[in-house]
Amino acid sequence: MQAENKPVRALFVGFGNVGQKVAEILFLERERHPNVRSLDLRVVGIVTKSRGSLVNNNGVDVVKALQEIREGGRFSWTNFELTNIKGLDAVRQLDYDVLVELSTLSIAQKGEPALSHVREALNRGKHVVTANKAPAAFAYHELTSLAHDKGVSFLIESTVMDGTPVFNLAKHGLKAASILGVSGVLNSTTNFVLSRMEQGESLEAAVTIAQKEGFAEADPRHDLEGWDASAKITVLANALMGASLTPYDVDRQGITHVSVADAQTAVKAGKHLKLICKAWREGEQVKTKVALEEIERGHPFAPIRESGSILMIETDLLAPFVITETEPTLSDTAFGVINDLMSLGS
Amino acid sequence: MQAENKPVRALFVGFGNVGQKVAEILFLERERHPNVRSLDLRVVGIVTKSRGSLVNNNGVDVVKALQEIREGGRFSWTNFELTNIKGLDAVRQLDYDVLVELSTLSIAQKGEPALSHVREALNRGKHVVTANKAPAAFAYHELTSLAHDKGVSFLIESTVMDGTPVFNLAKHGLKAASILGVSGVLNSTTNFVLSRMEQGESLEAAVTIAQKEGFAEADPRHDLEGWDASAKITVLANALMGASLTPYDVDRQGITHVSVADAQTAVKAGKHLKLICKAWREGEQVKTKVALEEIERGHPFAPIRESGSILMIETDLLAPFVITETEPTLSDTAFGVINDLMSLGS
Repeated sequence: MQAENKPVRALFVGFGNVGQKVAEILFLERERHPNVRSLDLRVVGIVTKSRGSLVNNNGVDVVKALQEIREGGRFSWTNFELTNIKGLDAVRQLDYDVLVELSTLSIAQKGEPALSHVREALNRGKHVVTANKAPAAFAYHELTSLAHDKGVSFLIESTVMDGTPVFNLAKHGLKAASILGVSGVLNSTTNFVLSRMEQGESLEAAVTIAQKEGFAEADPRHDLEGWDASAKITVLANALMGASLTPYDVDRQGITHVSVADAQTAVKAGKHLKLICKAWREGEQVKTKVALEEIERGHPFAPIRESGSILMIETDLLAPFVITETEPTLSDTAFGVINDLMSLGS
Repeated sequence: MQAENKPVRALFVGFGNVGQKVAEILFLERERHPNVRSLDLRVVGIVTKSRGSLVNNNGVDVVKALQEIREGGRFSWTNFELTNIKGLDAVRQLDYDVLVELSTLSIAQKGEPALSHVREALNRGKHVVTANKAPAAFAYHELTSLAHDKGVSFLIESTVMDGTPVFNLAKHGLKAASILGVSGVLNSTTNFVLSRMEQGESLEAAVTIAQKEGFAEADPRHDLEGWDASAKITVLANALMGASLTPYDVDRQGITHVSVADAQTAVKAGKHLKLICKAWREGEQVKTKVALEEIERGHPFAPIRESGSILMIETDLLAPFVITETEPTLSDTAFGVINDLMSLGS
């Protein structure tokens, strides 16, 4: 799309931390990031649940929008671009090239409303970029085949390990390989909490710190009960191993039952408690599991502390290899969204 | 090229361990590797320096060729495909789609003859896939711009970390990022030797084991003096950071001066000696270095033992991330070549 020298028209649904960071990088910090400059993005709509919604067919004033959120927590009542449009209506009616779906994952609602937004956009022949795990965790094959039929992209790089290349790596770097299994530590909050519990901090105190540092949600149960990890391993199983699973199919365990004594006993035995995500093949089936495991000190997953993530990929031809994300920030997730926006149609 | 349902016509120059493994996977083990089956390769020539050369415009009998090498160490005198053609003549005269350049890197000869093979093939508008570091270490920008002008591919995935995705990862997964620096442990032989010296083995004894295990060359000085590592960091600097360097530009150190006492003293202090490759920016310039460093136990590079490799990539938008290759075999390098063969023209 870039080759045509026409701006890419984007509709943002959801404009929380990730959406704002995407906008900051592209509209405020553009000069500091030379490789994003070739992306000419025109935002024709920003639809949110609690911050108001902006629509402008000639391009929303993104700098002003960011400033309003910073100052008032929402788009200003005086902003002439302000409308009452809802997400699904915007997806159905506005004139855009790509839907940027950044709403929050809802396991209880089986991925809605994000799933419907994505399905509708693809049906209209629009590209979709999403950092929301829901669509790929609940309907990966339906959506990829719909995108294929319509000749558009459905890109999800930021759904697992933030923007660290996982899906791009597999799509381009593992064409000749069959992926036999993936495993890793994929949820920052639980890994951070377990690291702190090893040092004697209580689960509750550690969660409070994780919330302050900005990577745990206000309601941390989604992380602590293993749902975020389950969604991630489902996306990996669906996208990399051809499975058709949902997060409800994962053999799931969380960390709410872990005590400080458990964490410290493991350390004394030279081990670390980690919430490990796994997908593997059993005959024609792909199985998935999220479970607390004792990891030996020499294991590739042992060095991952605090908020980092790690993923091991096993294939039929390559020796197992590992991707480690050291200290992710919001920029990492925003990067993945921007990288996807630069990959539309390719 | 696959879409046309015509076989890809390949000319192999060099047919040592890697070339034979590529041929084994594609012609003997095909059924065990479902994702390579879509690659329909017709080998129209195999040119070697010491094993003879085979040419057949309708396709060399690769299975017979492999058998002859296994039985007699070279192509048989009775093989009707046997010819006296030399590498450069084959590259200039035969009718092929892709040159698979697998000859040995020669630093002393500034990358020749591989460099000329690749240049000639690209000039003829042929794709090039190579596991030889020479072309990208000595003339990356000349060759990539030549390939671009001719509308063909120049693919080098196997030159660093065997086939573990590095160049594909950067090309597709880091479009939006500027790479600020790369560093890592990239030479298996020195890492293996240093690991063994920590356990009291002499340098010479450790080299002998590495040779037996098949990853050290018959003449190990290329590894021990840091030339292989220098070639690799040069390829990374050229391909990922826009540098125009050669291995002679690297501030290079080897491990021949290290004693068992040095290695064991480091371990007692909680550290490991590693031969670290680095490329970083200084103003407009890219600098490169290969040097022995003491790595602390908690450092991301510390866990790499024996023949593994590890690479850290730092960018302007993503937190530093690390790719670890655990226990590479010949399959890893062959995989990279095959993955490149499946990526021609994309």
